[in-house]
Amino acid sequence: MKIVRTVDEMKRTVAVYRDQKKQIGFVPTMGFLHEGHLSLMKEANKENDIVAASIFINPLQFGPNEDYERYPRDETADARAAENAGVDVLFIPDPTEIYPAPMQIQLGIKGRADVLCGRSRPGHFEGVLTVLTKLFHITSPDKVYFGLKDAQQVAVVDALINDLNFPIELVGLPTVRESDGLAKSSRNVNLSEHERHEAIWLYKGLAFGQKLIHDGEQTPNEIVQNVTELLNQNLSAGKIDYIELLSYPSLEPVSSVNQRVILAGAVYFAKARLIDNLIFDQDGEVINRVN
Amino acid sequence: MKIVRTVDEMKRTVAVYRDQKKQIGFVPTMGFLHEGHLSLMKEANKENDIVAASIFINPLQFGPNEDYERYPRDETADARAAENAGVDVLFIPDPTEIYPAPMQIQLGIKGRADVLCGRSRPGHFEGVLTVLTKLFHITSPDKVYFGLKDAQQVAVVDALINDLNFPIELVGLPTVRESDGLAKSSRNVNLSEHERHEAIWLYKGLAFGQKLIHDGEQTPNEIVQNVTELLNQNLSAGKIDYIELLSYPSLEPVSSVNQRVILAGAVYFAKARLIDNLIFDQDGEVINRVN
Repeated sequence: MKIVRTVDEMKRTVAVYRDQKKQIGFVPTMGFLHEGHLSLMKEANKENDIVAASIFINPLQFGPNEDYERYPRDETADARAAENAGVDVLFIPDPTEIYPAPMQIQLGIKGRADVLCGRSRPGHFEGVLTVLTKLFHITSPDKVYFGLKDAQQVAVVDALINDLNFPIELVGLPTVRESDGLAKSSRNVNLSEHERHEAIWLYKGLAFGQKLIHDGEQTPNEIVQNVTELLNQNLSAGKIDYIELLSYPSLEPVSSVNQRVILAGAVYFAKARLIDNLIFDQDGEVINRVN
Repeated sequence: MKIVRTVDEMKRTVAVYRDQKKQIGFVPTMGFLHEGHLSLMKEANKENDIVAASIFINPLQFGPNEDYERYPRDETADARAAENAGVDVLFIPDPTEIYPAPMQIQLGIKGRADVLCGRSRPGHFEGVLTVLTKLFHITSPDKVYFGLKDAQQVAVVDALINDLNFPIELVGLPTVRESDGLAKSSRNVNLSEHERHEAIWLYKGLAFGQKLIHDGEQTPNEIVQNVTELLNQNLSAGKIDYIELLSYPSLEPVSSVNQRVILAGAVYFAKARLIDNLIFDQDGEVINRVN
């Protein structure tokens, strides 16, 4: 596996693959790789000739009081894991490579970003849009892979690719979970032991919502209230940021769950804010792959 | 020459060129082609294997009281002229092809857009950034060609390409002029006979500014005032929108002309707003090509 640290070298590397008519799958990450990331890389490896991945903790998508500084980092372990997962070229740029000067061009999005995580993270998705546009131009992929744990990010990238006609296919892959159901996340290392036990209630709440939908509950408010109550009964260290049920990927309010919807939640702990979600088709079945 | 009207067909057409390892030069236009556009196509033809051009009057870059409806159109003559200038594929999409739904993704720019034409055309450059990003993704060019008559547009595209790491080289080519100096423009057909005579004073004013710089005048305000006075003495139907002298391409105020600067002006006539400019290097020599 090749490790590349500059934009110029990454562009040259990709140009060679292009010349060889290799199909490129790209997995952008912020590093501290877990099985969720590795499942994306393995799937990209199955579906493409070349897997490019990036590790870049994008300062532009963190708010001033968020966890940019304490976001976990382990480049050595990441490089080993990425190589084992089939990555051919790993792009690890310094922030000054990606942002050599203050950005003049601004990217924003109407809708999709002002609900769920967007509400408590103003500017977050603008930062995501900016870095992904840059990374897409630098790595020139045929397909990009994201985990559905960040389902709102997948919805925002879906708008980015469609609205701006990027010649790229978006693939959203299932959330990978611990044995007790907790969604794998780089931020889980910032949970105390007690918080780690509590954290499973986010998934248990969503699974309860799934049961309600399977049992025939159609009213979003009913589902959200029941999930919220279950979480409130079981959280003490954690505090709900939101539980929402919206259309997917348009992320608009719905009056009934008889369409593709997402049930999503976020919970604050002392040093980590965890998110999770389930996406349902119009028959209430859980959807695991989006593309 | 192939004429393509849909995004899908354009993407497929370009994919074939890419597969053949052809270098693609792209000339985006709003049609009603004149020698200025044709000079871009001819130069693109010299420097690339394939010349792609587009004719698209972009509704997003026109304000509500601007001339979108009366912008001149002549597709038959344009197709003939483009073919003669060496264009291989001409993309003429309907607005519904480019904007099938309201845009969710928004592009903006800090700086470069709030001076010169940007001041009297709010939203104009946001529309330009959006359509060019889309067209760049659809046509996947190696080089893009713009006329320096729209020097602010070239500066904005320069920021777009650099900030977002587009794998594209920007080429700005000299303004083509009528024999009396008037810059060629699709909008010149909207001038009355009297206005057409007056219109040459925009160029004469800029040329007077050039003479002042050659004669050693270094102070931007002096140059702008002298040019403004000359225009005001000679315009009756026309009305100055702006005469400005700024750094180029950053378009910031300067205290002296001892660097790359642009002297630019815009004049309103009844049914046309004309623009023109000269770009000078640090020695006061006119620059005709930017890349």
